[in-house]
Amino acid sequence: MKIHWLVLALVANAIMAGGAKFRHEKFHSPPVKSPEKDAHAEKIRKLIKPSNIRDNLRELTKTGHVAGTEKNLRVAKWIRQKTIEYGLENVHFNEYDVLLSYPDWKRPNHIEILDSNGTVIHKSTGRSKPLTKEETDEETELQWLAYSAEGAVQGDVVYINKATPEDIAHGKIVIARYSHSFRGNIAKAAVQAGAIGCLIYSDPQQVAILGTGPEATYGKTDKMPPDAVQRGTIYIGVGDPRTPAFPSIKGLYKEKTEEDLLNEKAIPTIPVLPIPYSEAKIIFERMNGKPVIPGFQGGLNVTYKYGPGFTNNQKLKLSVCSKKEERKIQNVLGFIRGKEEPDRYVLATNHYDAWTYGAVDPNSGTATLMEVSRAMMEYMNKTGYRPAKSILFGHWDAEEFGLVGSGEFAEEYREQLMSRAIGVVNMDLIGGNQTLLGITNPTVANVLRSAARKVEHPNPSEVQEGRKTMYDSWKFYSPSKNNRSNEPWQMIPAGGSDHLPFYNYLGIPIIFFVTRSLDTFPSYPLYHTMHETPHLMENILDADFKMHKAIGEMFVESILAFTDSKLLPYDLKELLDDVTLEFLPAIRARFETAMKDKKLMKYLEPGYEQFGLLEKTCQLLNEQVHMRNESLLSQSSAARLKVENDRLMELEKCFIKPDGILGNRQSRHLLFSPSQENWYSGNAMSQVHDLLTRIEKSKNDKKMDKLSKALAGEIGHIHVAFICAKHSLSPFFAS
Amino acid sequence: MKIHWLVLALVANAIMAGGAKFRHEKFHSPPVKSPEKDAHAEKIRKLIKPSNIRDNLRELTKTGHVAGTEKNLRVAKWIRQKTIEYGLENVHFNEYDVLLSYPDWKRPNHIEILDSNGTVIHKSTGRSKPLTKEETDEETELQWLAYSAEGAVQGDVVYINKATPEDIAHGKIVIARYSHSFRGNIAKAAVQAGAIGCLIYSDPQQVAILGTGPEATYGKTDKMPPDAVQRGTIYIGVGDPRTPAFPSIKGLYKEKTEEDLLNEKAIPTIPVLPIPYSEAKIIFERMNGKPVIPGFQGGLNVTYKYGPGFTNNQKLKLSVCSKKEERKIQNVLGFIRGKEEPDRYVLATNHYDAWTYGAVDPNSGTATLMEVSRAMMEYMNKTGYRPAKSILFGHWDAEEFGLVGSGEFAEEYREQLMSRAIGVVNMDLIGGNQTLLGITNPTVANVLRSAARKVEHPNPSEVQEGRKTMYDSWKFYSPSKNNRSNEPWQMIPAGGSDHLPFYNYLGIPIIFFVTRSLDTFPSYPLYHTMHETPHLMENILDADFKMHKAIGEMFVESILAFTDSKLLPYDLKELLDDVTLEFLPAIRARFETAMKDKKLMKYLEPGYEQFGLLEKTCQLLNEQVHMRNESLLSQSSAARLKVENDRLMELEKCFIKPDGILGNRQSRHLLFSPSQENWYSGNAMSQVHDLLTRIEKSKNDKKMDKLSKALAGEIGHIHVAFICAKHSLSPFFAS
Repeated sequence: MKIHWLVLALVANAIMAGGAKFRHEKFHSPPVKSPEKDAHAEKIRKLIKPSNIRDNLRELTKTGHVAGTEKNLRVAKWIRQKTIEYGLENVHFNEYDVLLSYPDWKRPNHIEILDSNGTVIHKSTGRSKPLTKEETDEETELQWLAYSAEGAVQGDVVYINKATPEDIAHGKIVIARYSHSFRGNIAKAAVQAGAIGCLIYSDPQQVAILGTGPEATYGKTDKMPPDAVQRGTIYIGVGDPRTPAFPSIKGLYKEKTEEDLLNEKAIPTIPVLPIPYSEAKIIFERMNGKPVIPGFQGGLNVTYKYGPGFTNNQKLKLSVCSKKEERKIQNVLGFIRGKEEPDRYVLATNHYDAWTYGAVDPNSGTATLMEVSRAMMEYMNKTGYRPAKSILFGHWDAEEFGLVGSGEFAEEYREQLMSRAIGVVNMDLIGGNQTLLGITNPTVANVLRSAARKVEHPNPSEVQEGRKTMYDSWKFYSPSKNNRSNEPWQMIPAGGSDHLPFYNYLGIPIIFFVTRSLDTFPSYPLYHTMHETPHLMENILDADFKMHKAIGEMFVESILAFTDSKLLPYDLKELLDDVTLEFLPAIRARFETAMKDKKLMKYLEPGYEQFGLLEKTCQLLNEQVHMRNESLLSQSSAARLKVENDRLMELEKCFIKPDGILGNRQSRHLLFSPSQENWYSGNAMSQVHDLLTRIEKSKNDKKMDKLSKALAGEIGHIHVAFICAKHSLSPFFAS
Repeated sequence: MKIHWLVLALVANAIMAGGAKFRHEKFHSPPVKSPEKDAHAEKIRKLIKPSNIRDNLRELTKTGHVAGTEKNLRVAKWIRQKTIEYGLENVHFNEYDVLLSYPDWKRPNHIEILDSNGTVIHKSTGRSKPLTKEETDEETELQWLAYSAEGAVQGDVVYINKATPEDIAHGKIVIARYSHSFRGNIAKAAVQAGAIGCLIYSDPQQVAILGTGPEATYGKTDKMPPDAVQRGTIYIGVGDPRTPAFPSIKGLYKEKTEEDLLNEKAIPTIPVLPIPYSEAKIIFERMNGKPVIPGFQGGLNVTYKYGPGFTNNQKLKLSVCSKKEERKIQNVLGFIRGKEEPDRYVLATNHYDAWTYGAVDPNSGTATLMEVSRAMMEYMNKTGYRPAKSILFGHWDAEEFGLVGSGEFAEEYREQLMSRAIGVVNMDLIGGNQTLLGITNPTVANVLRSAARKVEHPNPSEVQEGRKTMYDSWKFYSPSKNNRSNEPWQMIPAGGSDHLPFYNYLGIPIIFFVTRSLDTFPSYPLYHTMHETPHLMENILDADFKMHKAIGEMFVESILAFTDSKLLPYDLKELLDDVTLEFLPAIRARFETAMKDKKLMKYLEPGYEQFGLLEKTCQLLNEQVHMRNESLLSQSSAARLKVENDRLMELEKCFIKPDGILGNRQSRHLLFSPSQENWYSGNAMSQVHDLLTRIEKSKNDKKMDKLSKALAGEIGHIHVAFICAKHSLSPFFAS
């Protein structure tokens, strides 16, 4: 998983203060019932075996397996072999030649502290220490961040906590805490502030809440030990950085060279390194400057100071070896061909590449998805059942570097996916055994809820509390916060895993779900550490793999909701309710606040006028969709259903702006594209929010003129998308 | 019709010297037979009545009816009323609020000649003289070009014939001849050269080949009389100039203001006026300078000179009134709903707005299309027949200003058209009674040929020569010029009429056809003059409306080929043959010539390498499509046929580059987008040709570096389109 799912949740939670972002069912009709489909799903679910998942996990995580390496190719081949054995069709590698990034496995990245004579008085090993006997792969010990610049820099340190560094960072090495911000944004902010290097560490306040001694950390608990670090990518984007909106097929043209990427600062131009909190402590102990404000003080037993620099004229040296290399990656694909509509597909996916062993992220998901495909084939072979539409099981590669495998696939198969794919069900990891986190397009939110309702909760402590299903505990821990709904909280689509290119570039409705424990923040403490081995899973997180099985069952229910529902399970009422009751009011409120400023008025007015027109169209469309009778429709003739389903698919494509939002060719969804200001933003129509923010902040008339036009234009494009949606539901070319 | 169809043909003819651009059937299979469909088509054709067409034409052309005026609204309402009477479904106005341009109807544009004291010694009336008693609408007399700048300028004249004006035009008023170049390009070149005004006239050498006296011109012949002018638009583009790639819906955001358009020189910034050759003669009689080279001498009885300026210090003054106004336009739409696949559409279209009365351009086509829709309804009512797929009869408005009605429609209904439209059959005018001119996507070239084969030629002089069908005379007058084919010559899609947005923006295969006489150049001589009344048609061009009927029959055959063929009539073999045997070899030849220049080598090589890869992919795809057996496929089950047809439609969309070719968001077809260097170019993959030309001409290393990258990139994008095409034909996600 590229970015913290829980971060996403919590940031979104913070952003949507007031509880405006909740799914609901008050205004929309219940899902269409399909007893026959339900019977098949239930029988398939029973065939999922926790022991198979456990065995899969053990095999997948024998070594570290970073994308683009021989070790990861071994994993790919094994998944392919098993998938063939299960009996899936057209099992094959889907390959791309992409720009990845590696450390020098023989020369670990490290930091040094030099005294005033330049003598090294401390040097980090750049390696984390193995803690269980499974951790035998020495390469997993290395501490690094993908796409860091190579080089050694020396200078003074400043502590920026989680804040955006400003003037104080210029010419300095910044030290930042892992927090709500995506690490790519931390690195980018450091570059923009003129820093010469960047260190990021996880503070015990978040990752070692029981203490930092051996009894309070891994291997006794699931908390982060002193020498561990969170690895990850610091590239902000999707797919091979060299080929935006173009597939990285062997030999084919690459739009950008590595030099272009550095010139455009599309990848970091300074060395960036994750350090363990044991090393952070050594730094903080020496820091000059004033003690920090209370919120900046972390959990290390030392007084945190801002710097700049160390006492006694000591200096910090940061050395990073980083090579960017073109490597071959392979998505592993396998198919179950639909009986009635073979060219309509649901994608069931999870990535398989990992920063280290990957026993949580992502192979808890991989192992489960493999077992789901096996169970489906077993059921088909036993009963002669075959789903009505096709299923693509996709194991993505190089997700960790920036959704590279799925992103390139979405670019190569753009037309096929846009015209044939009806939904994407993506998972990433089983991060705990307590509750769900769900991210979906509003249109298919009901699919995830229905699946969760059907699956029993595997954790006895939940069941004892009366929360018998996955749905019950989800709703309990993520309750609705408004009076529009009694449903559990779901986020609108945002970044973070392989579903992103499918909704954002192609307009396909997505379902993404993971599980989590309750006491972890901002993610599970051992996220992207070398300790993600089966030991962690089998001894701490999900010993009997019952949560894995439950997740597999949710996969089955979600997949069959797409393949075997006669009428596609798209709930337009939920979409339009969200639009008219949440998304638009949130923007209206911003307009009304901002327009109190008389100076801004003139720049806001053209957009505000367009916004008023948009509201009217959405209101009309809302009324139209609430008059639809899905239950009746689903009893139509096959030919009529085909027309209706095609129209529903077409409608989703209305929200794709062909040339991209605000100039980003890969980010094309008019309702759900990640904010350019904040990659994590869960704001619907983020481009409108972004432009409002920019207008509010801007002081330059000429720039504001341009922003003012852009604001009206972006709202105009959203408006046309809803007009298009209206057309899609009507007999062709309605007057 | 916005631009000369015959110009297109002849320019393309010149460009493709060597005959590289001809359709053929040598390598592809004959069209799939469909006896049942043929029987219906034949019976419908018989119901088309020439007298109805004549009556339609008389009603449509009672007055001049420029788009956006009350007079044109009258025409629209009449078409709507008749279409409702015929029994079509969902007949309605599809309206847009667009920026059009008009003269001051009370104050005609004109030229004056001033003596050295500034005294006016000659002033043109700015009106053409009526020559028949039908010509009663005084507004049709006015001489103007749409989107000219307003203003009066005074100075010296230079004669540029058809050449691009260069330094000599700076600060001058240029006089140019109507020729192969689109008048918009003439005006644009004048602006770019720094001219202060621009006059365009039709030389008798082309338009009055029998002499300029009354016995040799209209009303005795179809040749241009001394006072007539060709009106037209000088805007180069599609749709409302303010809203590229966005529909001009009432109240909605307009990206560009009139000021923006002038600043960007997207519309002319100088006065531009068409003058009759009688006025041109007055100018040439006074010209200073050297006599022109022989090729520049025209048919006026005067020695043509270059200028600059007049003898005796006389000056020219040019006065143009031009108001750009937002006006409402209305496309008239009517439907026949398909019985089996109501959401699959063929569009049968013609525009109805005219510069004057429009009896040739466009209402010869309008009158015919109306009668086709009537005949179809009559047949349906009589027999109970109903086409399997739906038909949209579309009468477009404001085509003359720049494909405005069709362009806005294509932008509003982008998603619906891309997913539902299977073909567009567009006509524009019946310009003569001898032979056809055909422009089609290669995929559907066979549809037009099949239609032409079935329809008898209405002209006895052709039949006497043994050319019994429309096909026979077409092949005779436009023979194949290579040894690959015995088929008549067809052009690849280019600009010129309302089919353009459908193939170029949306990727829908188009068929466009008009008729012509043989002795006319560059179009019929009375093109866009005030003399386009029924008198011209009934007394000279097609007295008994038999050619109109024949064209109506071709409409019927073409429409039913789309609606009633079980397998879509897309011939991929023809497309791939054209690609591998013509389009790619033409580019290879250019590369090989250019690479003889060692200095260019370095800039061409990246593109050349990409080109080699592209050739290989196309060769493989060519082999694959030649193994398809359409006859067998067309006997498949309905479900299988649906899958196959959807794949064929999807394949065509592979050639649409979402963000546009070379930055033009409206011009998106990777194979067939009009050249940016020359709007008329019939070159396939014109962007590659354009870039090669620019590299050859460029002398700046940095610019060439950029062009070199762009060349490799554009070829890469074409390559990916063919990879996509391959995917569309394969079971999903072929390995």
